[in-house]
Amino acid sequence: MDQQKLIEAITNEVMKKLQSVPQVQSGRVQGTAYSGLAPYTSPGDLASYIDHTMLKPDAGAEAFDQLCREAVQYSFKSVCVNSSWVAYVSRKLQGTPVKVCSVVGFPLGAMTSRSKAFETREAIEAGASEIDMVLAVGKLKEKDYRYVEDDIRSVRRATRHNTVLKVIIETSMLTQEEKVIACQISKRAGADFVKTSTGFGGGGASAEDIALMKQTVGPDMEVKASGGVRDYDKAMAMIGAGATRIGAVSSVAIVTGNKGTGSY
Amino acid sequence: MDQQKLIEAITNEVMKKLQSVPQVQSGRVQGTAYSGLAPYTSPGDLASYIDHTMLKPDAGAEAFDQLCREAVQYSFKSVCVNSSWVAYVSRKLQGTPVKVCSVVGFPLGAMTSRSKAFETREAIEAGASEIDMVLAVGKLKEKDYRYVEDDIRSVRRATRHNTVLKVIIETSMLTQEEKVIACQISKRAGADFVKTSTGFGGGGASAEDIALMKQTVGPDMEVKASGGVRDYDKAMAMIGAGATRIGAVSSVAIVTGNKGTGSY
Repeated sequence: MDQQKLIEAITNEVMKKLQSVPQVQSGRVQGTAYSGLAPYTSPGDLASYIDHTMLKPDAGAEAFDQLCREAVQYSFKSVCVNSSWVAYVSRKLQGTPVKVCSVVGFPLGAMTSRSKAFETREAIEAGASEIDMVLAVGKLKEKDYRYVEDDIRSVRRATRHNTVLKVIIETSMLTQEEKVIACQISKRAGADFVKTSTGFGGGGASAEDIALMKQTVGPDMEVKASGGVRDYDKAMAMIGAGATRIGAVSSVAIVTGNKGTGSY
Repeated sequence: MDQQKLIEAITNEVMKKLQSVPQVQSGRVQGTAYSGLAPYTSPGDLASYIDHTMLKPDAGAEAFDQLCREAVQYSFKSVCVNSSWVAYVSRKLQGTPVKVCSVVGFPLGAMTSRSKAFETREAIEAGASEIDMVLAVGKLKEKDYRYVEDDIRSVRRATRHNTVLKVIIETSMLTQEEKVIACQISKRAGADFVKTSTGFGGGGASAEDIALMKQTVGPDMEVKASGGVRDYDKAMAMIGAGATRIGAVSSVAIVTGNKGTGSY
């Protein structure tokens, strides 16, 4: 019960602070408390914020060739793929500054912790230096916080000292309170980022969620916005609210000032 | 090229034979070439065909308690869950004839083969005696048949001698030819079943697909229909077309002659 009260107090505090979050209008950020971006950042300047993403199960080599080509051409931060494609894109990107990011336990987050850890080790051995794992959503809903934390710790232990670990909390399935708890647990378990969405769970990133997540994790941890970020305006709104990384399929549209399509 | 011609010849042969597949009208099977079921099977008689399924990422203990309770009450063949819930449902079902089935590499089929094998071993150690793995769809589309077969063999090697292995081919993403090839590869790799759908890929089981799959794998291998099977009529149509197992969320509706809801 004490824990319950603590959670409520923290949630209230965070919700109160949200009143003072920078306002976003027409994609121009009014106030840059978190992003450090100038208010009139050009689309091209966003490239280093972007994980260029391809997670469709039926995508083949051609799709990944294009993904890598675009990532190099536009200087995206990383390409983000399913673990079976990590070796392939790592070879393609050898000698370039583009990093390789692998999703783990994706997209349901419902496989065993040891399996998530194993998949993480496999991905890192194959060339991944960033891991986007899916939180055990059902266990969080169950209030089995010990499980959720141990699950993330299992993956953290499977990473190398310089591996970036992001925890996808799948905001669309969580209450406000659960979002806060998911962020707190991720932080305690040693993750580097919390991330909004898998893109497969029927919802995407919102400025409100980003702000809530950023307020919860504080300055020592980062927030990645993913799901439905398909143009410059939306990307800037996410960054204005506190995101320092964007997961997108429409990355080229974002950095060229066009509108993207698709569901991620 | 020889292989290509062989594939075309087999596809044509299968498509020709499909002309003589039993016709299904109003859920009553006209001809029971595969099922061995009498044409007027009662809903309750279908229970032993059904894997009672719960794969939603946000489902908690209560949902799995209900799943197990219903499985025992209606004598379903198994409960089918994500691997992190296998230990839980196995404890619940101890001493009952209901089997535990775990999905693996679910639902994208895009994690590394070794990760699928590891998840399989984890699930079996926790109590699963059936494994429903997802085929590497992207590699199949890529015509990397060696990879697809090795991927299934990795999982097969991770099973025990009496573990039932089903390969989900995700029919909604495949051409007719790819469905045939997926079935042939699954058979060659030692699977016991081919299964239509994950329920997360935007499509479900059709009588036409079941018939094609059954014709392709022949009498020594079985076919599981999953995705959108929500009532007795649809279940009977699947069985009439050659399925000997049904994956369903609406299992209770099927065996009580009602209509189910939901997306699986």
